[in-house]
Amino acid sequence: MTTPLRLGIAGLGTVGVGVLKLLTTHAERLKERSGRDIVISAVSARSKNKDRGVSLDEYTWEDDPVSLASRSDVDVIVELIGGEDGPAKALVEAALENGKHVVTANKALLAMSGQPLAERAEAAGLSLRFEAAVAGGIPCIKVLTEGLAGNEIDRVIGVMNGTCNYILTRMEAEGLPYEEVFAEADKLGYLEADPTLDVGGIDAGHKLALLSSIAFGTQVDFDGIAIEGIERIEIADIRHAADMGFKIKLLGVAKLTGRGLEQRMSPCLVPKGSPLGQLQGATNMVIFEGDASGQIVLRGAGAGEGPTASAVLSDIVDIARGYRVPTFGQPADTLRAARPAIAAAPAPFYLRMTLLDKPGALAKIATVLGDCGISIDRMRQMAHADRLAPVLIVTHKTTRTALDEAVSAMEATGVLQGTPVALRIEVI
Amino acid sequence: MTTPLRLGIAGLGTVGVGVLKLLTTHAERLKERSGRDIVISAVSARSKNKDRGVSLDEYTWEDDPVSLASRSDVDVIVELIGGEDGPAKALVEAALENGKHVVTANKALLAMSGQPLAERAEAAGLSLRFEAAVAGGIPCIKVLTEGLAGNEIDRVIGVMNGTCNYILTRMEAEGLPYEEVFAEADKLGYLEADPTLDVGGIDAGHKLALLSSIAFGTQVDFDGIAIEGIERIEIADIRHAADMGFKIKLLGVAKLTGRGLEQRMSPCLVPKGSPLGQLQGATNMVIFEGDASGQIVLRGAGAGEGPTASAVLSDIVDIARGYRVPTFGQPADTLRAARPAIAAAPAPFYLRMTLLDKPGALAKIATVLGDCGISIDRMRQMAHADRLAPVLIVTHKTTRTALDEAVSAMEATGVLQGTPVALRIEVI
Repeated sequence: MTTPLRLGIAGLGTVGVGVLKLLTTHAERLKERSGRDIVISAVSARSKNKDRGVSLDEYTWEDDPVSLASRSDVDVIVELIGGEDGPAKALVEAALENGKHVVTANKALLAMSGQPLAERAEAAGLSLRFEAAVAGGIPCIKVLTEGLAGNEIDRVIGVMNGTCNYILTRMEAEGLPYEEVFAEADKLGYLEADPTLDVGGIDAGHKLALLSSIAFGTQVDFDGIAIEGIERIEIADIRHAADMGFKIKLLGVAKLTGRGLEQRMSPCLVPKGSPLGQLQGATNMVIFEGDASGQIVLRGAGAGEGPTASAVLSDIVDIARGYRVPTFGQPADTLRAARPAIAAAPAPFYLRMTLLDKPGALAKIATVLGDCGISIDRMRQMAHADRLAPVLIVTHKTTRTALDEAVSAMEATGVLQGTPVALRIEVI
Repeated sequence: MTTPLRLGIAGLGTVGVGVLKLLTTHAERLKERSGRDIVISAVSARSKNKDRGVSLDEYTWEDDPVSLASRSDVDVIVELIGGEDGPAKALVEAALENGKHVVTANKALLAMSGQPLAERAEAAGLSLRFEAAVAGGIPCIKVLTEGLAGNEIDRVIGVMNGTCNYILTRMEAEGLPYEEVFAEADKLGYLEADPTLDVGGIDAGHKLALLSSIAFGTQVDFDGIAIEGIERIEIADIRHAADMGFKIKLLGVAKLTGRGLEQRMSPCLVPKGSPLGQLQGATNMVIFEGDASGQIVLRGAGAGEGPTASAVLSDIVDIARGYRVPTFGQPADTLRAARPAIAAAPAPFYLRMTLLDKPGALAKIATVLGDCGISIDRMRQMAHADRLAPVLIVTHKTTRTALDEAVSAMEATGVLQGTPVALRIEVI
């Protein structure tokens, strides 16, 4: 009989409680599957007495989560506190220091400190796993690291922030403005404490950085991602996109080319009927394109108690079964430093801007585009009551560099109010 | 430095050649990922001199595949011969006998002999892995066995025979009759040597049986599947379905209830806009519904050199990394014997039949349905030139048992020509 695997769990919010429940209700099945008992030795959270709907009586309580790491009755630290530093980081470091495996749902921590933490774990022969950090219940880390290990990965694509997708699909379905749906999402508790993490594309960017590292064998490089949030998307954009057969999604794309590692996280137009276009609400989608496997599409709940707990359990069962896979799929000291590159592949772009109603204004904009070598597929000036004319332009294929130049030049003409909204049209 | 993992590969058809190519072209990446060299010691196939577009010069050749199993320079047998017995089975048995791990793409062998083979492998402390046997490049075995190990699985759903889906989507797109598209598929080499394996639903049934075992902790029970093929689907059925907003797919569904293990593989109507309804050509889709994870949808190429080789490599890399997971996700001797049960959940059904043009014929059919407690949602008798009238009926929700009774009773009335086509309408 093998010995039980003993956990110390830090953080008893939604996910932590979900993990406790699964470990309790599924104890027998988990034992059958992993070949040993999985037990909880000790737990820690901010408040001991909060009613969580589960009993903590059987577990030792630690006020300080970091103390879990020095307990001799703990083999694995399950870090569900969150945050890129503070107690979460201190706990993970202490755990690796003290010979404990780590399972975490903390994308921010790994996106910022994944490289040194992975090196430390591997030097000590320990597992540092993070299935729950990316795309909730979808086992996309496992699929990429193990299921597609025989491939060179050509591209990673993902809609990985459920809150943004909820906001965008609800704006469309109800015809509500961004601000109103944002307030609604806030009230429902869908937003992070700092909401720019969600709507600013940062949370999804953390996830993309982790996938890139595994896919391309590069060191996690969050700072190398060209990030744009959904804050400037208006209901008008969603409607224009729909008229042309598209939906707007906060889309992450990563690709390694001879020029370097391209990583971008930004709102894009995708065909309405495509799998990405059909994603509703908080559902996530992750797509891996392997040179042998072809396109593998994964869809599932991106957050929530059950799905995230399911991902945490997957890592715990792997450790119980004795798997030891390097954090990013190959030894951390073999990961190459990523050289960030701007996406070079040309694409059509959607542009929306507000023109001051001056003679020759539209001509000036058209001239700027021509000067930057960008040709126009269609252009439409809306009817307007005041002196501000909304203008919509769809370009033929062009590069992001040319487009950014054009946008700067347009602003310099003095005929625009504000900055144009520029969205890539992605045909996947 | 760890020692290399040494393979003996049997079967050098499309998949075998794909595996050779990946091992050669991706040798460096594979080494980074698995921490050791993966090398081929020996190969075997029917003909040594056939031009396969790859050189075999570096590998020892064995005329008899079973001889690979006794070579001291082989750690893992990669069985890509196929077939539920014969040399494939002899090789796998010999491999386990001689202490070699086995990686196979052979769904028929595992669907028929998975239980004793898994027991043997586990008794000897060996891996017997089969990612490539189900849904080509989609790592669905890994997702189910490991990624969802923390869940009770409520239901498994899949479109897992690319050939059938190719035939059905092509019939619809081109308006061609079944026979013609079947002949076309045959010419393209899409069909198994015995085509009833494909169009009869047997190949897809083998795959479902394997997924059921892992999902529910039951012994593989291929004979317990209610199997129906696509041979009787006519272009008229596809058109009627389309008129009502549905597509016809060869759909596998498995579920464990208090009554037993429900497994069915049969053509069904699914909503046009659903992920299943949108599957085109040879693409496969596998859906797992976990009690914690919720619905996880996986989509990818179901066959072909690259995708299947990618799946084989996933198993090989796992073995190289030292993973040892029981074949069906828990020790084979803990798998429970499955008690087959007929699907009890009621559903609407689509019925097409040919009525002899006799007075009162339609009334007789309607009466039979009423007598069996089945109420009619809609009914349509087509215009007809001869004395045979095609009739289309969509029922309200009813059970398969009631429906089968009704179909028998209808046939007994003597007003039908042939047997009605009855397809379940599945809203997933």
